[in-house]
Amino acid sequence: MEEFAVRPDPADPRLTERVAGIDQAGQPIETAVPVERPLTLFLNGREIVTMMTVGDYPDCLAVGYLLNQNMLRPDDRITAIEVDEEAEAVIVRTERQTDFEGKLKKKTLTSGCAQGTVFGDVMEKFDTIALDPEAVIHTSWLYALSKKINTTPSLYLEAGAIHGCVLCERDRPLIYMEDVGRHNAIDKIAGYMHLKAISPAGKLFYTTGRLTSEMVIKTVQMGIPILVSRSGFTAWGVALARRANLTLIGRAKGKRFIALAGAERLRFDADPAAADDEPRRVQRKASLDEDAA
Amino acid sequence: MEEFAVRPDPADPRLTERVAGIDQAGQPIETAVPVERPLTLFLNGREIVTMMTVGDYPDCLAVGYLLNQNMLRPDDRITAIEVDEEAEAVIVRTERQTDFEGKLKKKTLTSGCAQGTVFGDVMEKFDTIALDPEAVIHTSWLYALSKKINTTPSLYLEAGAIHGCVLCERDRPLIYMEDVGRHNAIDKIAGYMHLKAISPAGKLFYTTGRLTSEMVIKTVQMGIPILVSRSGFTAWGVALARRANLTLIGRAKGKRFIALAGAERLRFDADPAAADDEPRRVQRKASLDEDAA
Repeated sequence: MEEFAVRPDPADPRLTERVAGIDQAGQPIETAVPVERPLTLFLNGREIVTMMTVGDYPDCLAVGYLLNQNMLRPDDRITAIEVDEEAEAVIVRTERQTDFEGKLKKKTLTSGCAQGTVFGDVMEKFDTIALDPEAVIHTSWLYALSKKINTTPSLYLEAGAIHGCVLCERDRPLIYMEDVGRHNAIDKIAGYMHLKAISPAGKLFYTTGRLTSEMVIKTVQMGIPILVSRSGFTAWGVALARRANLTLIGRAKGKRFIALAGAERLRFDADPAAADDEPRRVQRKASLDEDAA
Repeated sequence: MEEFAVRPDPADPRLTERVAGIDQAGQPIETAVPVERPLTLFLNGREIVTMMTVGDYPDCLAVGYLLNQNMLRPDDRITAIEVDEEAEAVIVRTERQTDFEGKLKKKTLTSGCAQGTVFGDVMEKFDTIALDPEAVIHTSWLYALSKKINTTPSLYLEAGAIHGCVLCERDRPLIYMEDVGRHNAIDKIAGYMHLKAISPAGKLFYTTGRLTSEMVIKTVQMGIPILVSRSGFTAWGVALARRANLTLIGRAKGKRFIALAGAERLRFDADPAAADDEPRRVQRKASLDEDAA
């Protein structure tokens, strides 16, 4: 798969808006901000949820959400995905009726951004997933990935206030999705992988968001053995990563990072002192839950 | 009300955990991370939702959540709030039965962090709220608030990966709450204000999180006319702030900020060039959805 097979499109006029205001000197300014719009998801005619999203890849978002909630099993055959832009709706149709009704009864809203629901049986499935024990991550890949991801044009660099998630292989970012909710970004990648039949084998996952229980659960559900973030950890995120044997690397900025689970997959082939500090422009918007997430 | 009448307690052993790992040089390290635990909310014996929270002020979180969801009206008399730590549950009892059942049918999961549900009638109420047109914010207050909030001891400075919200008056931070979900932090303040009968008049609200539609809706629901954030904006957040005549100030770091709604409440009494840059230590954890939120 080629590098950045999917990448953000900051030039898409549907994804950002220009708005006028004033700055600290009282001078008029104009700035770009990301769009946030509702999208209502239906499964076989039944309304599931309304999500707030930047709006790109609604088909991937719908399928990824249903997969990560265990509402769609990997062997369910999808017969249609209909996006109705006017009605702000997406409808996923499957060959057989799914057994999700019972799942709607028991839900947990999570501490992550957006759409954070964990259904009762997600944890049951979690404990049955075996992540690849042979997978490794070289520190040279980690540094190369951070640099490529943070300097490639994105809605984040254009407008701030948006999360990014990236499916990677070795030192190559493959699928880079952004969304106002970080769980949308990860769900969009899960949906894309399912629709294009991309295997999680040999992959690692990069996110700009915090490593909460929900992000760990979704990554494990997707079968990806390594999760990397610029941001920090919660205690339950760390505990779940250890339980699933997921490698959990956080606070990865410039040359620095720490690993709090699965550190045996790390291969130290780069000299941290030689790693670049981050260029100032990748931080220019001061715009994302920067100092608290 | 005194400055920091409520402030974070980073020394509370229930709120952070120390975990071991390794750093970029392969050296063993130990670091603090915030706790994230489930709390199930019941209203008069009916289960409403399970929230992921750091766990302090469960009574305030419960009441604030119910108020901000319009499940509890300001004139509903609360007869008991029972916190069951073992069962990880909080039960709110009211004198009369509430009419929330219908509201459970129509919900929207939002793009913000955590617990983001907006019920159908929230928007109906939104349009009836009149925010104080006389309220003002001096830029000198803004600079003083940012400095006080960002340098006071907090779970954020101790462990990262946590959001803060602060109810303020002029240049004084009054109630500073933190949580792994920023909506929990704002709900805890709403609950505290209700339980202690603190008026929103003359107050402003500071948050570390992004200015999404949900944060704007909650601030307006609380009757607070000015909302300030270190982070960025979404287009719908800006549009709703303009509709409600809320003053919306974002990307407020060091001397810089921009206002995208309600700028007429600003009074420019400080020289931005004289404002401090932020001390490096307030950013030290690199730990919160720093560059994407």
